[in-house]
Amino acid sequence: MPQALLQALRARFGAQFSVALAVREQHGRDESAFTVAPPEAVVFAERTQDVSDTVQLAAQYQVPVIPFGVGSSLEGHLLAVQGGISLDVSRMNQVLHIHAEDLTVTVQAGVTRKQLNEAVKSSGLFFPIDPGADASLGGMCATRASGTNAVRYGTMRENVLALEVVTASGEVIHTGTRAKKSSAGYDLTRLMVGSEGTLGVMTEITLKLYPLPEAVLAASCSFASLADAVNTTIQIIQLGVPIARCELLDGNTVGMVNRHSRLSLPETPLLLMEFHGSPDGVQEQVGTVQSIATEHGGKSFEWALTPEERTRLWTARHNAYFAGVQSRPGCRAISTDTCVPISRLADALLDCVDEAQAAGIPYFLVGHVGDGNFHMGYLIDPEQPQERVLAETLNTKLVQRALALGGTCSGEHGVGLHKMDFLLSEAGAGAVDMMRAIKRALDPDNILNPGKIFTL
Amino acid sequence: MPQALLQALRARFGAQFSVALAVREQHGRDESAFTVAPPEAVVFAERTQDVSDTVQLAAQYQVPVIPFGVGSSLEGHLLAVQGGISLDVSRMNQVLHIHAEDLTVTVQAGVTRKQLNEAVKSSGLFFPIDPGADASLGGMCATRASGTNAVRYGTMRENVLALEVVTASGEVIHTGTRAKKSSAGYDLTRLMVGSEGTLGVMTEITLKLYPLPEAVLAASCSFASLADAVNTTIQIIQLGVPIARCELLDGNTVGMVNRHSRLSLPETPLLLMEFHGSPDGVQEQVGTVQSIATEHGGKSFEWALTPEERTRLWTARHNAYFAGVQSRPGCRAISTDTCVPISRLADALLDCVDEAQAAGIPYFLVGHVGDGNFHMGYLIDPEQPQERVLAETLNTKLVQRALALGGTCSGEHGVGLHKMDFLLSEAGAGAVDMMRAIKRALDPDNILNPGKIFTL
Repeated sequence: MPQALLQALRARFGAQFSVALAVREQHGRDESAFTVAPPEAVVFAERTQDVSDTVQLAAQYQVPVIPFGVGSSLEGHLLAVQGGISLDVSRMNQVLHIHAEDLTVTVQAGVTRKQLNEAVKSSGLFFPIDPGADASLGGMCATRASGTNAVRYGTMRENVLALEVVTASGEVIHTGTRAKKSSAGYDLTRLMVGSEGTLGVMTEITLKLYPLPEAVLAASCSFASLADAVNTTIQIIQLGVPIARCELLDGNTVGMVNRHSRLSLPETPLLLMEFHGSPDGVQEQVGTVQSIATEHGGKSFEWALTPEERTRLWTARHNAYFAGVQSRPGCRAISTDTCVPISRLADALLDCVDEAQAAGIPYFLVGHVGDGNFHMGYLIDPEQPQERVLAETLNTKLVQRALALGGTCSGEHGVGLHKMDFLLSEAGAGAVDMMRAIKRALDPDNILNPGKIFTL
Repeated sequence: MPQALLQALRARFGAQFSVALAVREQHGRDESAFTVAPPEAVVFAERTQDVSDTVQLAAQYQVPVIPFGVGSSLEGHLLAVQGGISLDVSRMNQVLHIHAEDLTVTVQAGVTRKQLNEAVKSSGLFFPIDPGADASLGGMCATRASGTNAVRYGTMRENVLALEVVTASGEVIHTGTRAKKSSAGYDLTRLMVGSEGTLGVMTEITLKLYPLPEAVLAASCSFASLADAVNTTIQIIQLGVPIARCELLDGNTVGMVNRHSRLSLPETPLLLMEFHGSPDGVQEQVGTVQSIATEHGGKSFEWALTPEERTRLWTARHNAYFAGVQSRPGCRAISTDTCVPISRLADALLDCVDEAQAAGIPYFLVGHVGDGNFHMGYLIDPEQPQERVLAETLNTKLVQRALALGGTCSGEHGVGLHKMDFLLSEAGAGAVDMMRAIKRALDPDNILNPGKIFTL
């Protein structure tokens, strides 16, 4: 990075600017198994103007800019593989406008999902999308994130109404409005959602909110085999039950979660479920799901009766990734993320578990199975190259299987550095070329998070 | 158009090709009030290869290509304002794959919404999106259409999973998969949906389907004033009632519908509603909505009890546009399409009706009010220029009001030729420039439906 740019950034940002190694290293890694690749400098933006000024300076010197929220990406999105500036938006953490009367909220990009839910709780509302980590809404937009509630409420794709975006030239634009639907021109909002920081830097985000359900019931149900749990899920979805959460763990993973979160869930294949609605509506859903589970040999439901018990259960589920990683000291997780049409879920999932077990690699298995999406986390020793090779071999086989079943290589984590080849297999060269053409049009100097999603 | 191109098209397409004036005139108009602008030739595509070959020939000669479905656009999308070829896909009308077990279907772009529903009915499924006309799914994708069920089931934005698209160079690409969610690269599917034929020609479309609801109830409810009907709607939505349809007509429009469809609905402000769910769930919704309506002076519900009565009611509603146009012989309708956040619906709607009445212009008013979306149709005599000026003046005022309330100029009809200035006011020059940059990147010779959405 040119000294002149460093000086200009320091002059503009003062204490909001750092080149300290510790700060740079913290900003050049994420939760993936990639080796840290620190940026050359970090800017802590506090307002949209800071983002715009940073991007303008970077554009002037043709230096990369990598937006950074809380660092919870799983696919290497935050690594400064071509150097440049990490643009940390975590201080842009204001909840700007709660429009309870319209079920919308506008936040700065650094607001996290838990912070947002705290802010809107007193209005009787909530924001359902919940990746495991307490991610920033900006990061969740960038990766088109989802989580446990997506089976009922959709993903970031369905829940972002409008954005303020800083373009590659530093210009501030607005996409979308607070109207529920629109046919006014190209859908720039959804083009930005999932663009992984490569087309613009999101600074403000307008989201849908939902009324807190009148009744909430959560339960776990044990099964003798993974196949029974998966087939129960398939039938729940095919019958159109509006279940709010439907999560799978295998017995091995339940053990990890028990040890990490001090729970005593039965260490067998387990479905964790939640039902939202009116009291009668919830009972109706529960009745349907209980009878489906019984048909597949499910044990009787264990209820999480109080809000505290529910929070404990879902916190444990959200921490499953960390429970997995901590189960093998010093390990890193290589996470898979395929998503298939619901009828193909058993075909996509069961063989993957058998393959991991046959290979003798430690792993965890969690799944947003109501969406046809599951994650194998291969727990590798980063010092042992052959473990990484084994994990990637298993991952490749798993992805090829999902694609053959009509699925996608990524349900919710994004492509980043890790799935570029998979994206090409999935979308084909023509579609990836179209993505490249869009990238070149909107970021001609390739300064926005370069080297992610595809090579140029 | 060069003679060489005409000869090449004729040689390639034979009887699938026409330059007859009647055929060209039929393809150079839509349901809008614009004067017909016929293309120079029409190709009737029967398969994707026909589309690809047509676009390749057009690209070679840099001649416009305008995709055509059934001709039901309301915004001038189909007019050949720069000449060229109308590419009629109505013969591409195969329902290719019904995956009932995954609630998805893949169709060719010329399949109409009614044809699709006939094809999936025996599987116990339906496709909810229903613009008034029996539009083609390709056209519905192109305009990001919605209709009466969108309040519960979303629009084409939420219901298209994947596309086959012919690009500006004639290449066939695929966007998306049958998986319910994905984070694999840029969201080309949603970029294409709503692009009005300017970025690619859609040839195959994979859609979500829904189980036919166990119970369906439809009712109408009369109100003393439009304000009462609108405020009832606002409260229904704010309470989170999962109503399937919530449509408003004013008394004047009910009269038109009565005369057109031989009904005897009370000619007062009217909400037409439908409820989907389990029998108990539907009763719960009805109870909530009845008590809200009563608070606002609504009369008791009139039930459409049998499927035939329901069909009659909704067919009449779908034909409201035609009922309006036929109420004034020889007229054309200039249709508005704003959509606002639900809490601003009364502010957006009531003054518009007063203004139309004060101006003395004949009009109809229908609204997907549960979405905050309504249409004024100004019924003008196309021979009287001052009527067109008056209608556009009222429309401009209506749009400016909606934008000031945080809404959009188009909820579901698209921009076409008619709303380019409104789009600029709504999105701002920066966002429209971004749309232009994408257009130039994907269609460098500007052959795909040129002159629509924005000027280049």
